[in-house]
Amino acid sequence: MENTKINIKEKFIKFNDYWSPKVIAEMNDYQFKLAKIKGEFIWHSHDSTDEVFMVIHGEMCIELRDGLVKLSKGEMYVVPMGVEHKPFAEKECKIMLVEPKGVVNTGQMMDDLTSPNDVWI
Amino acid sequence: MENTKINIKEKFIKFNDYWSPKVIAEMNDYQFKLAKIKGEFIWHSHDSTDEVFMVIHGEMCIELRDGLVKLSKGEMYVVPMGVEHKPFAEKECKIMLVEPKGVVNTGQMMDDLTSPNDVWI
Repeated sequence: MENTKINIKEKFIKFNDYWSPKVIAEMNDYQFKLAKIKGEFIWHSHDSTDEVFMVIHGEMCIELRDGLVKLSKGEMYVVPMGVEHKPFAEKECKIMLVEPKGVVNTGQMMDDLTSPNDVWI
Repeated sequence: MENTKINIKEKFIKFNDYWSPKVIAEMNDYQFKLAKIKGEFIWHSHDSTDEVFMVIHGEMCIELRDGLVKLSKGEMYVVPMGVEHKPFAEKECKIMLVEPKGVVNTGQMMDDLTSPNDVWI
């Protein structure tokens, strides 16, 4: 068997840092990443790809220049390519991201919150 | 705001047919699909792409020529490109699939279970 199954809850136990996506699976040239988030992220966009946010546990918001998206457990949202967004979560929130391999978490912005890429757990 | 958020549980209420994936979101040229499954599917493979299975509710198995993958709620598995697989579920199971737009559910096999493509809910 070439792959093993992935248990999302068990993967979340393996890290505690915020805003630092960890890769759990790869499909073609796309990656599934988990992140714990709390507080405010920075405004940024991704110039070459859409980005999927899926809430696994808790609640988060995605601020857009023209609106606010509130997401709870079991809800997802696709941030379109090039659209500026600022995620935030009042309390700790567990999310899954889906996007092409190589996407930097802060998009075109280099910041203290810019996280190493392609870190697997 | 260009997109709306997607509530997975609410989407599952909108259909009841088995083995007939419904699209709920698109990211670049990839689609997120929901399916209710029960019983046995057919052996098939996808020659040009990996395929992600994620269990939202219930339990399913993916039979492979060299093994068996049992998936419960919160677990996912990537079927590699070209690998023959046969999904089945003893009881109704709710799953999410992620794969490129245009992928046919029965892969290279045409069958009674071959489902219309690109059906959104």
